[in-house]
Amino acid sequence: MRDDVFVIGVSMTEFGVFPDRSVPAMTTQVVREALADAGLDASRVGAAYFGNTGQGLLEGQTMIAGQLALREAGLSGIPVVNVENACATGSTAFSLAVTAVLAGTAEIALAVGVERMNIGDRARTMSLFDGASDVHRPDLLQQELIDLGGDVDLDRVGTRSPFMDVYAAFARAHMKAYGTTQEQLAAVAAKNHRHAVHNERAHFRKDMTVEEILTARPLAPPLTVPMCAPLTDGAAATLVCTPGVARRLDRKGVRVRSSVIGTGVRRDLHDYSRHVTRRTATRAFDQAGVCPEEVSVAEVHDATAFGEVLVSEMLGLVGEGQGGPAAVRGETTLSGRIPINPSGGLESKGHPLGATGLGQIYEIVTQLRGEAGVRQVPGARIGVVENGGGYQHGEEAVAVVAVLEG
Amino acid sequence: MRDDVFVIGVSMTEFGVFPDRSVPAMTTQVVREALADAGLDASRVGAAYFGNTGQGLLEGQTMIAGQLALREAGLSGIPVVNVENACATGSTAFSLAVTAVLAGTAEIALAVGVERMNIGDRARTMSLFDGASDVHRPDLLQQELIDLGGDVDLDRVGTRSPFMDVYAAFARAHMKAYGTTQEQLAAVAAKNHRHAVHNERAHFRKDMTVEEILTARPLAPPLTVPMCAPLTDGAAATLVCTPGVARRLDRKGVRVRSSVIGTGVRRDLHDYSRHVTRRTATRAFDQAGVCPEEVSVAEVHDATAFGEVLVSEMLGLVGEGQGGPAAVRGETTLSGRIPINPSGGLESKGHPLGATGLGQIYEIVTQLRGEAGVRQVPGARIGVVENGGGYQHGEEAVAVVAVLEG
Repeated sequence: MRDDVFVIGVSMTEFGVFPDRSVPAMTTQVVREALADAGLDASRVGAAYFGNTGQGLLEGQTMIAGQLALREAGLSGIPVVNVENACATGSTAFSLAVTAVLAGTAEIALAVGVERMNIGDRARTMSLFDGASDVHRPDLLQQELIDLGGDVDLDRVGTRSPFMDVYAAFARAHMKAYGTTQEQLAAVAAKNHRHAVHNERAHFRKDMTVEEILTARPLAPPLTVPMCAPLTDGAAATLVCTPGVARRLDRKGVRVRSSVIGTGVRRDLHDYSRHVTRRTATRAFDQAGVCPEEVSVAEVHDATAFGEVLVSEMLGLVGEGQGGPAAVRGETTLSGRIPINPSGGLESKGHPLGATGLGQIYEIVTQLRGEAGVRQVPGARIGVVENGGGYQHGEEAVAVVAVLEG
Repeated sequence: MRDDVFVIGVSMTEFGVFPDRSVPAMTTQVVREALADAGLDASRVGAAYFGNTGQGLLEGQTMIAGQLALREAGLSGIPVVNVENACATGSTAFSLAVTAVLAGTAEIALAVGVERMNIGDRARTMSLFDGASDVHRPDLLQQELIDLGGDVDLDRVGTRSPFMDVYAAFARAHMKAYGTTQEQLAAVAAKNHRHAVHNERAHFRKDMTVEEILTARPLAPPLTVPMCAPLTDGAAATLVCTPGVARRLDRKGVRVRSSVIGTGVRRDLHDYSRHVTRRTATRAFDQAGVCPEEVSVAEVHDATAFGEVLVSEMLGLVGEGQGGPAAVRGETTLSGRIPINPSGGLESKGHPLGATGLGQIYEIVTQLRGEAGVRQVPGARIGVVENGGGYQHGEEAVAVVAVLEG
């Protein structure tokens, strides 16, 4: 990046099932905690980027959800932008906050992500996921899943979330190409559930063995329930600023080396070389002047255990086809060569869509500050966040990759 | 602003009632036309900001509406962000595109706004407007309208758009404070309907007399139907770039002197000194180094004729309380001292929510290039765009003000 931007405050609610916590209430909590973490007063914030995906469909609150939630949190008068980018919404808000500081729009900018998913009507919540693919062309989705060798239930598409079917089909294609096994996927999930035991903000904190995960209820073969992210309520926030502000605050800021948003392209379904995550990661590492071998710790988008396998490869943290074997060998555990998802990941920490990316940044910043306690990766210096989302034919619609330095 | 940014391409569909035109189809049209206007290939665009408010509630397409629409338009792989800021969505997308160029995220950035409102279910479309205020506190809205002396039908709030009631209550408060009359509001509307006769892209192109407007069907007293913006389908796009790109293209670019987003604050309903549009305009003029007296032409958010009266005052284009009298005196017509809404404004050109702000920029850029034909403001050099939206208690939730120089 042209200039430096620093993360100077982070916060995150407990992730879980909280049907009584409103969007403004969760927003207020994370804004206050991020400001307290930075040692800043609300009046210092110059711009805010508000990420949420569900309040329109689920609560009827469209258009100015951020203005209303942030006013309750004590922020008004400043530029506020409501942002949506599927499951990569939170990291997109982060990217816009970084851009605002780079452009001089604000010396201090806030990114906040919040999602309330457990509000009673599960069918409606699932319909939200349908809106993350092309609602006008369900035929394309079906054909692609069949092309991928998926055994998708054609009757179900359109009436429930297709996302676990999508991930399952991706997983089967990878199994065919690289020999990835269901046991390897279970090893990824077991590692993440183990990590989450040490995360007091995680949705699930129950250690699970590979065997337990393999024999759990199948959701979309080869994926069983504990390999998939739950429906989670929660919020997270990040404050970024100029180097001058960071100096004056005399805080140990975390430097943003890059934060890049990428969009999917039409491609052959088995052509991983043009995968949105690979292309976005390449740009993010280039801009950061960092290579994947230098990464100390990563939080990646494991909406399913297979997501982590693929993303680890696309980021170059493990070799092609090595995502599964690396997990089995313990390379991605807290004490391994390249710890991935020390927070427990989406599978265990939870996946409140608009908040997820900022929850990942919370974890990486905590790690780079050396404040992660029992789950601290020793000597963490370079952290990577990868957050993906949406589905357009062929692949994910959005990927955001950020490289941070402690 | 720290550096220069130039508008190098603009486009706008015809605005009107087009139930068969899809969001991706309208997006494709304006992206192609903006690229053609700039003399650029799609591959040169480095980032895109997509503004839309209704596709989630009205069509079920949430989360990645922009990625899907822009891919059909030939843009994929680049950063895409879905943006929402009520009726100020289009100008918010513009502001983000400008910020991206300033930050170095992209040399060329696209802002596109699109709205499909006439899709059969009018009740559902009206419910969209409810989402532009606090859906959880309809009681606040009712109390405020009563405080303003509004005769709002309490039974109707929540079942239809409260926006015309809000504007009507604002108008009555202004009448009380400044002696503004219904005849003056009709003069504003008559002027805008006359301007639109010369705009081949306008929703309505019918000249109307003050008398015809006064005797038309009352919508929310003192507002009659021709004083209010219709439900419109349409799209608009703007390409912005660095000075280097503008030079290499050898095009007459329009310089962005400022583009500022503001959010409302809690205030006394009659305290115009802290009005969101005034505060935002002050910042926009300061950043631009321009004073209101230097403005050649303005496009302002006349969702109703009263909106134009108030905004003209808040921008300092006319004196306090002079919005109405200035219109009667002809100061704001094409040949007047300060021509306002030469396009016909939202009342006549139409108001496709997510596209409206970019439609305003289309008009101002056309004026500053001297390409507005019959409705050209002679010698236009400095243009202002003001786009507002949403409602939180006390005032509009969002205002965006941009100052452009030809």
